[in-house]
Amino acid sequence: MPRYAFEDFPVGCEIDCGSRVVDRDEVLSFAAAYDPQPLHLDEQAAQASVLGGLSASGWHTCAMVMRLMCDAYLLDSTSQGSPGIDNLRWLKPVRPGDTLSVRMVVQEARVSQSRPAIGLVRSQWQVRNHHGELVLTMEGWGMFGRREAGNDR
Amino acid sequence: MPRYAFEDFPVGCEIDCGSRVVDRDEVLSFAAAYDPQPLHLDEQAAQASVLGGLSASGWHTCAMVMRLMCDAYLLDSTSQGSPGIDNLRWLKPVRPGDTLSVRMVVQEARVSQSRPAIGLVRSQWQVRNHHGELVLTMEGWGMFGRREAGNDR
Repeated sequence: MPRYAFEDFPVGCEIDCGSRVVDRDEVLSFAAAYDPQPLHLDEQAAQASVLGGLSASGWHTCAMVMRLMCDAYLLDSTSQGSPGIDNLRWLKPVRPGDTLSVRMVVQEARVSQSRPAIGLVRSQWQVRNHHGELVLTMEGWGMFGRREAGNDR
Repeated sequence: MPRYAFEDFPVGCEIDCGSRVVDRDEVLSFAAAYDPQPLHLDEQAAQASVLGGLSASGWHTCAMVMRLMCDAYLLDSTSQGSPGIDNLRWLKPVRPGDTLSVRMVVQEARVSQSRPAIGLVRSQWQVRNHHGELVLTMEGWGMFGRREAGNDR
């Protein structure tokens, strides 16, 4: 039986999703595969760019946040996926060597009217670097099986 | 001098960003690194899941779309980055072997009031599989140097 079900995400609930160091080689390999803009790939070009130095692709940051969410609660939950994300904002450059930490804040939670065994949870994720600066925020709905509905596997 | 500047993205402009086959090994390796939910990693678990079969992480789909955008116009443009994404929707599962194609549609374009050498472009990206089904849509602002401002490097 998973540890986390819909009932564990009431409005106002905050979950510390832990932290992760941004690895320079991984910044470069992600960029080479998916976002080969010079400011993610080349130190000199990055220095001259709007970001003022090498920085992770915004999608790489999202992927790192997803991994922290998985390890913090999603893999041990009744999650049934997400329809999408709203208000994704890349607020500051994410640099190799930065330590990112993620906090989830539940903004809304309700049982699905069409599928009462499922609950819908709207959360905001706040991502900070080791200077305490917000580098990314995003919001989204998650679908979780309800423990009370016996639908927790 | 880059090929694409702000002036090349008028409202209503549509850009075909080409296509890409979803590679099974890449689906598995992306999931192992960033989104190790069984429905992205394990064929049997995926069959039993809400998605009914192995499917790419939603963030992997975003990353593949980014690469198509890069190759279609971004790498040869006056792009100065993006503040974020709105209304990201994962509409259908993306399967290994699917061919994804991406279309960009410009919805709004205006010169920045605070930085007149820059233009702001709001676009929607529509991602379809080889059956013609929409699998992902998202919207976002991009910042591009203006050719007319001589700011195209």
